[in-house]
Amino acid sequence: MGEFDVIARYFTRPVRHAALGVGDDCALLAPTPGMQLAVSSDMLVEGRHFFADVDPEALGHKALAVNLSDLAACGARPMAFTLALALPRVDETWLAGFSRGLLALADEHDCELVGGDTTQGPLNICITVFGEVPAGQALLRSGARPGDDIYVSGTLGDARLALQALLGHIALPAQVLARARQRLERPTPRVALGLALRGVAHSAMDVSDGLLGDLSHILKASGAGARIDTHAASFLIAEKAYASGVTGYFDIELVRQCTLAGGDDYELVFTAPPERRDAVAAAAQASQTRVSRIGTVEAEPGLRLLDALGQPLENRYASFDHFG
Amino acid sequence: MGEFDVIARYFTRPVRHAALGVGDDCALLAPTPGMQLAVSSDMLVEGRHFFADVDPEALGHKALAVNLSDLAACGARPMAFTLALALPRVDETWLAGFSRGLLALADEHDCELVGGDTTQGPLNICITVFGEVPAGQALLRSGARPGDDIYVSGTLGDARLALQALLGHIALPAQVLARARQRLERPTPRVALGLALRGVAHSAMDVSDGLLGDLSHILKASGAGARIDTHAASFLIAEKAYASGVTGYFDIELVRQCTLAGGDDYELVFTAPPERRDAVAAAAQASQTRVSRIGTVEAEPGLRLLDALGQPLENRYASFDHFG
Repeated sequence: MGEFDVIARYFTRPVRHAALGVGDDCALLAPTPGMQLAVSSDMLVEGRHFFADVDPEALGHKALAVNLSDLAACGARPMAFTLALALPRVDETWLAGFSRGLLALADEHDCELVGGDTTQGPLNICITVFGEVPAGQALLRSGARPGDDIYVSGTLGDARLALQALLGHIALPAQVLARARQRLERPTPRVALGLALRGVAHSAMDVSDGLLGDLSHILKASGAGARIDTHAASFLIAEKAYASGVTGYFDIELVRQCTLAGGDDYELVFTAPPERRDAVAAAAQASQTRVSRIGTVEAEPGLRLLDALGQPLENRYASFDHFG
Repeated sequence: MGEFDVIARYFTRPVRHAALGVGDDCALLAPTPGMQLAVSSDMLVEGRHFFADVDPEALGHKALAVNLSDLAACGARPMAFTLALALPRVDETWLAGFSRGLLALADEHDCELVGGDTTQGPLNICITVFGEVPAGQALLRSGARPGDDIYVSGTLGDARLALQALLGHIALPAQVLARARQRLERPTPRVALGLALRGVAHSAMDVSDGLLGDLSHILKASGAGARIDTHAASFLIAEKAYASGVTGYFDIELVRQCTLAGGDDYELVFTAPPERRDAVAAAAQASQTRVSRIGTVEAEPGLRLLDALGQPLENRYASFDHFG
């Protein structure tokens, strides 16, 4: 099976919105008048972003999910994406699973595959995603203001919990690992929440490298600092039963590591002024997404972490660096 | 040096046209009203698209050039691009050269780097490029009509000639190799020609995998066939002195292989009706790009190759397949 057969069989479908899809030198998109185009690229590499034996269907899901998560963080509506894929060899079972997972999530968000590239090489998946947002309404990192509440969507830390178990650093009961692994391998991009937060949030970003590190990007871009209720944030781990320390599986320090610096959460961290708490709640409701308040933006630069008793906590929670 | 330092030092520059560039979750582009957005992605892998010891500045140039060539083939004006880069390690000398070559070509075409991703992994370069074209005016593969002249821009086959020498299959004098190698490593995307051919050409495509194979995509998309003057095409190799067979370096069969199926030319192959020969000449002149007529589109499917005497020539010139 050659390059063009791979594209034809697994990645070519009728175009619904684009003016021209897979099969010419370029795809053609017809932007809606008055909208800006939001663009993001993410590259996933074996051993760095996923294990060699990951289920290809989950990998197809995740490869697009991490890109949709960037659109969500900007409040952009998904439109289309391109896929560039380097494969060691043509493995039809793998391609069938990968394209199934990829296109199922694409369909869920009405985001169509319009073009790309395939080549032989070490496994590498590069997706570039396009979305639309009304001019001037994109959620940026730079909009946080002192006094803003800091929120995070969904749950935090379970992806890292699964990773720690898969790396053999901790032991988890099979059912717990299976649930946490879903969070690692099949993240849910918070697209609907991002759309609902337009005009509500002052700033937003997606949590890919770890909550504190990613929040620091917002604070740096906004010239501000923050106080974080680490107890509230720690409590956002879904597998709370295994965070008690009673079972012996792990302790509060690991929970903090997972929730504050775990990475791979693909939740949104965002800020909004206190007078918009009702609007934030309404956005959460409209998008059927849980949001939790975990801190406050302050004028003084830097992150101030507080524990359950309101006492200062040393920040030992380094973020993920792709060259670290 | 971490991921964010790499991006800041080598790939972040002030944005000129985009609404938002490197450093947020998404870049924001503001499409011009009435324009369609042309999008293309290409992935370059070590050992497949370039040698491990290639000059990083040339590689930076080529990585963007092959993408701009796709825009050229559509008649789109370059606007912006994203870069996703997997690097085995942070090598500042390599990054400095790569970004210099990349951004010099980007500046030449006023095409700005608006975002991307960097990660650790086997060397892989994935660029997605964006251009604009007035709605309905993009040059497509599907527009060729029986009776159209078939043209190709510039020269053909020298990139493959260099590759053959670099692989040790043939010997070339150092100066000849140096010139041919420029064609392999620093292709010239025919952007100005593509723009000038809007409203003139019926169909167009860029020659990346080999003339005959790429032309076949046009013919297939257009439901047509063609007759090709292989003598005229063979004569488009720049290093003609080494194509004579007299020097003993190589023979006409190799010249045909290089020109008809060489790949890596990044010229445009396009078709236009005979009554537009003057318009094609004017487009060539306006873009200061040589174009040569090498055949005719015919209603009967398939490629009919003719030699210098007008006699049929067997088509043994297979195109490059990335999984071949």
